Amino acid sequence: MGQLLDGKLVAASLKEETLQQANELREKGIVPKLTIVRVGAQPSDLAYERGALKRMAACNIDVEVKELDAEITQEDFVKELKAVNEDPATHGILIFRPLPKQLDENAIQYVIAPEKDVDCFSPINVAKMNVGDKTGLTPCTPTAVMEILRHYEINPTGKDCVVIGASNVVGRPVFELLLNEMATVTICHIETKDSSKWARQAEILVVGVGVPRLVKENWVSEGTIVVDVGINVDKEGKMCGDVDFDNIVDKASMITPVPGGVGSVTTSVLAKHVVKACKQQNGL
Amino acid sequence: MGQLLDGKLVAASLKEETLQQANELREKGIVPKLTIVRVGAQPSDLAYERGALKRMAACNIDVEVKELDAEITQEDFVKELKAVNEDPATHGILIFRPLPKQLDENAIQYVIAPEKDVDCFSPINVAKMNVGDKTGLTPCTPTAVMEILRHYEINPTGKDCVVIGASNVVGRPVFELLLNEMATVTICHIETKDSSKWARQAEILVVGVGVPRLVKENWVSEGTIVVDVGINVDKEGKMCGDVDFDNIVDKASMITPVPGGVGSVTTSVLAKHVVKACKQQNGL
Repeated sequence: MGQLLDGKLVAASLKEETLQQANELREKGIVPKLTIVRVGAQPSDLAYERGALKRMAACNIDVEVKELDAEITQEDFVKELKAVNEDPATHGILIFRPLPKQLDENAIQYVIAPEKDVDCFSPINVAKMNVGDKTGLTPCTPTAVMEILRHYEINPTGKDCVVIGASNVVGRPVFELLLNEMATVTICHIETKDSSKWARQAEILVVGVGVPRLVKENWVSEGTIVVDVGINVDKEGKMCGDVDFDNIVDKASMITPVPGGVGSVTTSVLAKHVVKACKQQNGL
Repeated sequence: MGQLLDGKLVAASLKEETLQQANELREKGIVPKLTIVRVGAQPSDLAYERGALKRMAACNIDVEVKELDAEITQEDFVKELKAVNEDPATHGILIFRPLPKQLDENAIQYVIAPEKDVDCFSPINVAKMNVGDKTGLTPCTPTAVMEILRHYEINPTGKDCVVIGASNVVGRPVFELLLNEMATVTICHIETKDSSKWARQAEILVVGVGVPRLVKENWVSEGTIVVDVGINVDKEGKMCGDVDFDNIVDKASMITPVPGGVGSVTTSVLAKHVVKACKQQNGL
């Protein structure tokens, strides 16, 4: 049976790193702070927020939640966001997306201060990721994939990696981050003729498509490292990933469970990014 | 023998498209104009400039060359660039790179006006390319690859594509552009264990590494479409690409020659981008 890549372990280890850095900042009189901008009260936003609040508390990072009216206009939203940008006490800003329809995300991405943009909403951070400039802030979920690899000392450099899914929130940034580490990367998606053909060639297979158990046993070669970014609920109401875990776990050399895999690491990356942003803003 | 993908033909066809659009703009009283910013007088810059001047003339696009002193300071360069940004008569700006050492390209990329940035120097255009936002301006050489495919009615959607080379000026943007067309793409580079293994699986193989004839006959499968972005001079002083053309031409279904391939198309893309930028700036 493949070794489980335990997201909770990775998260705990990241928490220790981040907590220590946050405490060092506090000793210097700097209080790292995340401001969450939430429009309305979507249940999924609230669920993520609860996790984030808990994680920031564990990392000794202050948090403020700015809850805005679900009907807020573009003009007012931009005014509120600019105030957070300019607030010297805030080092990181997380905006829950998708935003309600009356708000123009395409315009708003240019408003968020890139140096506080801890989940890579700003085009400046997208561009930095694209050219491998590590001064930028990368998106949390794709970065969680990289943190799992790092924790288990899996160096992607020169490894044959295959990413299934090419969304702008998961597959594509995972591709960019793997390439930044000089992996050989193939990206497959809805138009790919035979994703399984590529997946079978992977030493590291990352899947983020949002289809319950899409990736079957015959997609995976003996010894593959499998990272599943999917979080789905199947027809029986059971939480599952994009990978048919039960039938793949014996073939894979290492594999993330769902739940308890990538999803467990995301808020720890968020905390790490708040501290990174805080240090950069203080010239540290 | 494989069909030649004739860059000169593609360039001529692009020229017709662009000339027509430039003339339509002129009929509206708008004169499309490119300003070239050149620091010093590097022979390679001058060679490219001559080609660009000729192409713009053929497309009825005005050009101004702003030649700056090779020793110009960062402050003065930024002042000059800002003046071009603000010049309402200029719709496109091309800055020859690499810039001399005393200039900080990393800072300058943020100065160039994204809407006039016809060769994708600005991070805003890099980010737009990364998320497939076609309002942006893409880099000319990688776009020349796409224009060759378009001209020969080769639709990359769903095709297995392999890019050899992951530089930020060729390989990586070619990857992004192919993925934006929903190709299945693999990118190989210096750390790849066996690029030939991937190359043999390509329906479309794009090579941009700068190594004379790196790609041998056994890298290519029968029927592959081969696009060679390399322009090298071999030991005998002969111009050649990154592909061993003589030994591959019979196996490939279509192949670009060097010279006469991708390199012949680049200034036509530049002209097309000046007209695109000009139209956008005039709300057309």
